[in-house]
Amino acid sequence: MTAPASNVIASVDLGSNSFRLQVCENHNGQLKVIDSFKQMVRFAAGLDEQKNLSEEAQERALSCLSKFGERLRAFRPEQVRVVATNTFRVAKNIGQFIPKAEQALGFPIEVIAGREEARLIYTGVVHTLPPNGDKMLVVDIGGGSTEFVIGSDLQPTNTESLPLGCVTYSMRFFQGKIGQKDFQAAITAARNEIQRISKLLKRTGWDFAVGTSGSAKSIRDVMFAENPQEADITYAGMQKIAARIIDAGSTKKARLEGLKPDRLEVFAGGLAVMMAAFEELDIQKMMVTEAALRDGVFYDFIGRQLNEDMRNQTTAEFQQRYHVSLNQAARVAETAQHFMESICHAYNTPVQELAHWQQYVRWAALLHEIGIDIAHTGYHKHSAYILEHADMPGFSRQEQSILSLLVLGHRGDVRKMAEPINGNQMMWFAILSLRLAALFCRARLPLELPPFTQLRLDEHGKGFMLRISQSWLDEHPLVAGALEYESEQWQKINMPFTVQPQ
Amino acid sequence: MTAPASNVIASVDLGSNSFRLQVCENHNGQLKVIDSFKQMVRFAAGLDEQKNLSEEAQERALSCLSKFGERLRAFRPEQVRVVATNTFRVAKNIGQFIPKAEQALGFPIEVIAGREEARLIYTGVVHTLPPNGDKMLVVDIGGGSTEFVIGSDLQPTNTESLPLGCVTYSMRFFQGKIGQKDFQAAITAARNEIQRISKLLKRTGWDFAVGTSGSAKSIRDVMFAENPQEADITYAGMQKIAARIIDAGSTKKARLEGLKPDRLEVFAGGLAVMMAAFEELDIQKMMVTEAALRDGVFYDFIGRQLNEDMRNQTTAEFQQRYHVSLNQAARVAETAQHFMESICHAYNTPVQELAHWQQYVRWAALLHEIGIDIAHTGYHKHSAYILEHADMPGFSRQEQSILSLLVLGHRGDVRKMAEPINGNQMMWFAILSLRLAALFCRARLPLELPPFTQLRLDEHGKGFMLRISQSWLDEHPLVAGALEYESEQWQKINMPFTVQPQ
Repeated sequence: MTAPASNVIASVDLGSNSFRLQVCENHNGQLKVIDSFKQMVRFAAGLDEQKNLSEEAQERALSCLSKFGERLRAFRPEQVRVVATNTFRVAKNIGQFIPKAEQALGFPIEVIAGREEARLIYTGVVHTLPPNGDKMLVVDIGGGSTEFVIGSDLQPTNTESLPLGCVTYSMRFFQGKIGQKDFQAAITAARNEIQRISKLLKRTGWDFAVGTSGSAKSIRDVMFAENPQEADITYAGMQKIAARIIDAGSTKKARLEGLKPDRLEVFAGGLAVMMAAFEELDIQKMMVTEAALRDGVFYDFIGRQLNEDMRNQTTAEFQQRYHVSLNQAARVAETAQHFMESICHAYNTPVQELAHWQQYVRWAALLHEIGIDIAHTGYHKHSAYILEHADMPGFSRQEQSILSLLVLGHRGDVRKMAEPINGNQMMWFAILSLRLAALFCRARLPLELPPFTQLRLDEHGKGFMLRISQSWLDEHPLVAGALEYESEQWQKINMPFTVQPQ
Repeated sequence: MTAPASNVIASVDLGSNSFRLQVCENHNGQLKVIDSFKQMVRFAAGLDEQKNLSEEAQERALSCLSKFGERLRAFRPEQVRVVATNTFRVAKNIGQFIPKAEQALGFPIEVIAGREEARLIYTGVVHTLPPNGDKMLVVDIGGGSTEFVIGSDLQPTNTESLPLGCVTYSMRFFQGKIGQKDFQAAITAARNEIQRISKLLKRTGWDFAVGTSGSAKSIRDVMFAENPQEADITYAGMQKIAARIIDAGSTKKARLEGLKPDRLEVFAGGLAVMMAAFEELDIQKMMVTEAALRDGVFYDFIGRQLNEDMRNQTTAEFQQRYHVSLNQAARVAETAQHFMESICHAYNTPVQELAHWQQYVRWAALLHEIGIDIAHTGYHKHSAYILEHADMPGFSRQEQSILSLLVLGHRGDVRKMAEPINGNQMMWFAILSLRLAALFCRARLPLELPPFTQLRLDEHGKGFMLRISQSWLDEHPLVAGALEYESEQWQKINMPFTVQPQ
């Protein structure tokens, strides 16, 4: 039995709600998921009042571990890391369970402390969210414990773990018909716990709050299904959801759109803990990331340094994976940024906003041809598909959507963009810049734009005007012809684009 | 100015209707299109009664060629081949035009004979249609000439070229309001031409007919829009379309669904020539391929040998391009074929049909994980997307759709398959075989199925039954658990799948 290649690593995360196995390939510090399993073991639900694990829960766990063990049979010990969290920490009879568990799995189990769990979660988040110097508060509500971490670069400044989780709180407060009182009791209990650390956290302070794991994601999903304009968790949004559960008498009867069936049992507990965290820590809103404990385990594993923006690394990795012509991509990026600067200058865009958008323009340009790997016909659509669906470490889902739209719009009929862009001026500027760059670089040769090539708003401020040397156009009939086509395109959506040869 | 890498080649095809430039990368004999341009120059329309090209047509052509020339500026002569067809052959004043054309383009133009054109078209078709020993008749209706070729392997036995095309016939017979008489006159004229070669072709004979190029494709598209059950061109279908054009008085007014605007002007001429070919050669139906003259130019260029089924080469190339784990793919393929054989044996499927489907099962298995390159989450959907949209030399569009469906169905909820599969028994067998194979190979280890593992129809013939050793299942909890999930899946669509441990 041959072991997997040495760049293949596996993490097993034995949480209080679910057990997970994930297998990744390490490509120079970029992780590519190649396999994953998840089973809702609800391990914490097996704890009785004396904190002993029931036989039944142990069997559920062992059955799952033996499956994971089958998948990991060929792995060498140095390719696998297994971490276990709160239920393993608190169960009285865990000592007799662990040897059986390790036998089923075939690898040693590391029961990690709350602070270590907090550090690993933070490591996962900080590798997938772009670092910008701001301090962030990470709140990870698990099945049996909740971690609170503050930090702004690789080493967090505060790591806290409290014994409250969506499984334990759902069991304690939300077993029967759910009323106003139950929510109040759960929130009060959670606030009492959080109080122990709130002063310390507030003293350190933070610039923005981030939620991770299933509870945060499911709250975000339910809020998003209700109001797609709002991507963050807000207190008012949670109050509405709680009110609907109380009205209906149970989470199930509340028929919350966006809630996955396997979260039904533990949703109310997680919601109460989150509301308590908002109240106790005065959180105004919270973004949600996909990063989780297992990501931290992986990054810790491979010892990656956080020495540059993960998004640039991901972009470079994708160029390689999809066999992009690097020269052409760089040419288009440089040209697009030239046009973007030109038009934003004419529009008096604030410097910071321009810098922000120049990043999107650059990434979109560097990746606009990835779809050619699927087919040249309609490649912009294939590029957009990949950017919408791929795992792109460092990019948020919203950023991927922006890149996907930019790439979709860089070619072909512009009418398709009118609806998704919906009046966002900067998006139009970026799309026009990318279109012109692709058009000017169509010959796939080194390009020097003639001096004084400028993109401007027209006098009515509704359309665009390109100033460019006539003699240069005469020497470049491919570009000149394409510019005529471009004018026709923008005419269709009543945003005229005219060329003014000088 | 650096020339493109030496595996990059370009073909320019100066047809009587459109001029095309295509740039490809050669990956060990597999061509990947990286750029393409097309301009509807309608060169043949510039011929006057004395067969002199009008100034205007020459200017249209030169304007297009100077654009192509800009794109090709960095190419070395040995990377480019330029072929010109019928209008170049027949225009009286072509001698004074060609030097100007070569200057605009920057490369020599090769005016090829009708037979050479026929041979190149055939070379394109034979490289993209799987060879199976059957003789095929290829009919390529161009702008100014139509080629007829018969062959069954790399060297065709008959290559004929006649001076009738969609542009010239549209100009000659369909300029004003279109009536029954115009169609009759066009068809009669075309039959008179085809008669010159019909005896010879019929003497050689053929097993199936294939149409290529814009006219055939547009006829197929219009018929398909009318009746999506029919993928081939039939005489009755063409008659219906002709009747609609005659009723409306023009192609435009007939508002034919599926017809691209740039074909409007030349559609009737191409239709009449095709109807004449059907009548004169007693063609019953004709499949359509995407292969064209330019493909033949490329394959001729790189001197590929036709030594095995192109589809296997494409499959291998795709496994590499999308970084597929070859061991795992081979294991799943072998296991899937075992199950497919087992169930087809139980169903008394004819040997030939089984062999046919085993190919699909094998290709689908070898490619089922290509989508992991985009993201592991929902990877079967990404695999299906790629198979639906990619350029896959050797596979027809219908075959790509079958593979795409098989891969989509190999995992997850089976309910999504009920509608697209729509009662096709062999598709269900293939999907079940792939699902079981993926499930049994989930541990990604060498797999030996226990002896007597058999897939059968259940007693009612409505569902399936898997016989397998109980002790083996006990040793493989991952597989045993997944089989339970599998049973639940098939229950949902009332095609029970049960496991009978022995």
